[in-house]
Order: sequence, then structure tokens, then C-alpha cells
Amino acid sequence: MARIGSGTRFVLVAGTTETATRDGISAAGADPELMPVTPAADAEILTYGGPVRTDVIPVSPSGCPTPALVTRAVREVLGMDVTVVDGGLAEATGAPTVTVGARPGKDIAEQDPVSTAHGAFAAARQFGQSLPADELWLGETIPGGTTTALGVLRALGEDVMVSSSLPENPTARKADLVAEGLAASSMDPGDAAGEPKRALRRMGDPVLATMAGLTAGAVETDTAVTLAGGSQCVAVAALVRHGGYEGTLGLATTSYVADDDSADLRESADRLDLDLTVTDPGFDEGDHVAMERFVAGEAKEGVGMGGALALADRAGVPMAEVRDRFAELYDDRIGALE
Amino acid sequence: MARIGSGTRFVLVAGTTETATRDGISAAGADPELMPVTPAADAEILTYGGPVRTDVIPVSPSGCPTPALVTRAVREVLGMDVTVVDGGLAEATGAPTVTVGARPGKDIAEQDPVSTAHGAFAAARQFGQSLPADELWLGETIPGGTTTALGVLRALGEDVMVSSSLPENPTARKADLVAEGLAASSMDPGDAAGEPKRALRRMGDPVLATMAGLTAGAVETDTAVTLAGGSQCVAVAALVRHGGYEGTLGLATTSYVADDDSADLRESADRLDLDLTVTDPGFDEGDHVAMERFVAGEAKEGVGMGGALALADRAGVPMAEVRDRFAELYDDRIGALE
Repeated sequence: MARIGSGTRFVLVAGTTETATRDGISAAGADPELMPVTPAADAEILTYGGPVRTDVIPVSPSGCPTPALVTRAVREVLGMDVTVVDGGLAEATGAPTVTVGARPGKDIAEQDPVSTAHGAFAAARQFGQSLPADELWLGETIPGGTTTALGVLRALGEDVMVSSSLPENPTARKADLVAEGLAASSMDPGDAAGEPKRALRRMGDPVLATMAGLTAGAVETDTAVTLAGGSQCVAVAALVRHGGYEGTLGLATTSYVADDDSADLRESADRLDLDLTVTDPGFDEGDHVAMERFVAGEAKEGVGMGGALALADRAGVPMAEVRDRFAELYDDRIGALE
Repeated sequence: MARIGSGTRFVLVAGTTETATRDGISAAGADPELMPVTPAADAEILTYGGPVRTDVIPVSPSGCPTPALVTRAVREVLGMDVTVVDGGLAEATGAPTVTVGARPGKDIAEQDPVSTAHGAFAAARQFGQSLPADELWLGETIPGGTTTALGVLRALGEDVMVSSSLPENPTARKADLVAEGLAASSMDPGDAAGEPKRALRRMGDPVLATMAGLTAGAVETDTAVTLAGGSQCVAVAALVRHGGYEGTLGLATTSYVADDDSADLRESADRLDLDLTVTDPGFDEGDHVAMERFVAGEAKEGVGMGGALALADRAGVPMAEVRDRFAELYDDRIGALE
């Protein structure tokens, strides 16, 4: 039963950056070797409810399940259609994807880590212009994405800190890596101010390029955009603002990101003039193993989780219903394997 | 509102063959130059209700709209999810697609027209094995597809005639072209009996290869398969039978194909031991310009139209409801442009 209007379209951008393979950067995948698979698996989980080609449900080293299961739970509860865009996948996914020419990103310490950034931005922008929707909700899945988000923010000269999928945000490590990347691109912080595509290509990742293009295209044709996520969405918003767009832009995230003291999401949203929606899934009331790691501060966001929760809330769905479905999915897909 | 079980999955395979560019072979596209665009547009219409990247709604030279609008109407009425597989698209589509490595097919008079046939079959088979569904309904869109279907049937040694999207089936022209193709591949009719992949590669197209692979994989994992269409689906069934599968296989088509005297669909279904479902959309009662050309014998099938109608019928949806929605879509998308 659809409990959501047909004018609302939820888009997931899934891709990769080799930046994720650096030690201690991301919690997206129990094993570093599985990280390139995570976005392909997330796309399948959101689309089908479980893995198809990837044969894996991403789980962090400490056992936190992918937020894809939460977004999938909302999708099922709302009867919500989703569209997945290939933002540089490194592994084949069984989920149908829209192609914008994005290829996997390289480590930002390399000189030209996102050679497809301009092309992907342009194709995504055109797609965003033509996609029929009254409102677009954009989520992402890319391990290592908060580090490239920091890279883009520094390149643009935006002095904000990003959040992390790890309970302890490795802020120093990220800052070092971004400094290394800026040096490799012969850039100082702020050198790409007003030049979003340059920031994307030198310090970003293909998912950020695709999301920024989608957002730019959609708002040009009066489609309302809500960025569904945390730090990466702040980076996308900064890119679009540096591209000259001054209109309305939404940011919907979880209470876990909003309450992360190591970042400063509320301040960033304020500075970038974003309409912020924070939704608490109430996992502390859930009393379920699938929710414990979220309550402990892991994952926090991803696969548009914050946006999905906001859509459920807007539709009047009690969070308990979302939690129940999430717990069922977890028990079916992960609990059964243990 | 979903009026269809979650275990039912509708898959559209969309692709191209250069065989379609021969004069008088296909009605799929008002202009021969638009034929490579038709499958990309059909995928968008089924997914979004209208064109996104392609900017065109396929219409035959005499004004018959693409059956994609009918299948889309059923999709909306039933709240039915669809998955599009790229079976060799020649133009970018805005619809999300699953990749199996199929590339556009060449003219069957060339020596190796479907070089990706083996790879696409294998990847589609694997996908068919892993796709979560109780039953799979498989439709196709490929201009020129009945001619390549005839090519495959001849290569396998199956003596049946195929139907046509044109009111007057150009049977002699098709037979000549198939004879030319067999000669180019140094084959006699029946030379590929029991060798479906050889028949596909030498005389088929990438959509047939993908559909045959999907079917083979799905039935291996006990997913019931209904081929949703006319002559091309007969060819897919023949390929799967020649591959050794003797179990249950469904064929769901429109009354227009079943009543086409130039082909012999009922006899073919009988010979290949297919469970045949024929559904009449009642377009003669519709009294609408969108339906007139169908009643006159044009298009007949495509984009899984016969299967979609069968699903609507099974769900207890009156055909008048499907017709009304189809007429609305036509008026919105085509009528408004006239």
C-alpha cells in the first residue's frame, strides 16, 4: 500500500572511492576488502530487500548493520518507489541503475582522483532536469565518503568538520589525508571557492559529483530537493551553493548525525541556509540487537536513512512500525546466519 | 495501492538489433532513425510514465502508440514494481537498468551479429537464479525482434512462422532475410538444434539471449516463468526447450497475436508445451483513438503487454479500468502534442 505521493521520488546514488581503503577511515564493511562491494550490496538491499549479485549484507567490524536495511524498512512500510543512480560502482550490482558516466574514484591523495567528475555532473544535471518529480530526496552510499566530503569542503574553503560512521571520529586522520590531497593537487584550502566542479574532481568522489549534478538540475526545473544524509549532503549543499544556487534546499538526517559533537551539522546547515529536518528512529526504545550499535553511535546515517525516516514521519507512520520492520529484515537476513 | 503479490516480479528486457533498419521489417517507430531509441523510450515510459532522456513516445508511422503505454497503465493500476534489464540498448535511457553485458545486435545477415550472446546469456542466467521472486514475468522491447525470432527458430529447426507489428506481416521479406543470415553463417535450418547459444549468436539478438538466460536461471531455482509477449517469446521458449528444460513454462500474450492468422501462436505454444494465456484488452469497446490502431491489427504486442493484461485480469481488475488509464496516459502524453 503506497502511503506516499507519486510526486515524491527517492534516489540513491551508489559509488566508490579508493580513499576508503585507508586504515581507520570507514566502518562500512566488516572487512576492508568488502568495502568496494558495500554500495552495490546497499543498492540491492534497498531494491530487493536482500543481496542478489553481491551475496553480502554489509555489517561493520563491530556488527552494526548497514543503514540500507532501515531505508528498505521505510520503503516497504510506505510503498515507496526508489531509483538507484550509478555514482561510480566498483562491483556489479543486481539493482537496476541509471548511468551518468561516473567511474570509481581514486584516493584523493592522487593528483586526479575523479576524472569523470565533470562528465558525471553534467549528465546527472541533465537527468535531474528531466526526471518527473515534484520533490526529490537524494541519499548516498559510498564508504570513505565523509573524508572526500571534508576534502571538497576544504577545497571550497568551508570551515566545517564532518561526521563519521565510526563511534570515534578519526578527525585528525581525515584532516591529514585531506592536507595530503590538497598538496597533491597543488591547492590551498579555499582555492576552489566558487568552482564546485574543480573541487569535485581534485578532492571529491564520483557520488558527490553525481549528487551535486542531480541537485543542480532538479532545482533548475523547480523540483524541490532534500539531501538525505549527513556530512556528504552538507558537502553537496556547499557545492550547489558555490555553483550559485541560492534557493530552497532541504537537509534531512538522523539524530545520530545531528547530535555528533565531533561535527557541527546544525551550524553547517545554518551557514548554508538549509532547511534541516532531524528524525530520531527511537532505536533506544527498540531493544533489539540490530539497533544497539546505532545507539552506541555507529553508522549514524547512510543510504538516505535520515530522509527515509523523515518521509515516514511526515506520512504519519509511527517509528515503532519502522523499527519492527527493520528488526524483521535484520532477523531474516543477518540474525538467521548467526 | 498494490493489487499484486510481492512475490511477482515483472522484468522488461530492452535492446536493439540493426536488423530493424531493413525496410519494411518493423512498425516500432514513426521514423527508421527513431528505431534505436524506441526500447530506451519504452523503458522510460514503463518506469516513469513518460520519456526522460529520450524525449520521445514511440508511435508507428500510422499513429499506433507503443504498447509501453498499455503496460504502464497496468503497472499503475496494479501498483506493480518493474525491473528493466539492458538487453543491448543503443541509446542512453533514463530508466534504471540491470547490466548483463549485452551490446546492440548487428544485422543477422552479418557473420557474427550477436557476439555478446554467450556472455549475456550466462550473466542473465546467474541473475535469474538469484533474483528473489516466486514468479517472473518477462517482457521485451526490440524493433525488428520478430525477424530475429524467426532466425533463431529456423536455426533451431522449428518450423513456425512469427507475427508482426505491421498489419500486413511481411513474411516473405523476413524469410528472405533469415535465409540470407543462415547463408552468411554457413548454416542450414536446424543446424543449431539443441544448441541454443549458437542459434542466438548467429541468428538472434541480444534481447533473446538475455531473456533465454533469465528464463533458464529462474526455472533452475524453481521460480515460475511466464514469457509475456508473442513471437519473440515463442523463440525464447524454443531456446529454453532446446537447452533441455522440460518443465512448466507460461506464455501470456494478447488476443491480437493469438488471432494473427499469418503466424500460428497457439500451435507453437502447443508444440513447445507452453501454458498459454490470451487476454483481450477489449480495445474495440474503448472507442478511443489510442486503441484504434491496435484494433486494426497494428503493434499487437510488446513491452510485456499481454502479460501485464493477464496480471490485471488475474487480480480481478476490469479491463475497462486498464483502458481508461491507458487512454488518460495517451491523452496526456501524445494527444496533448497534436
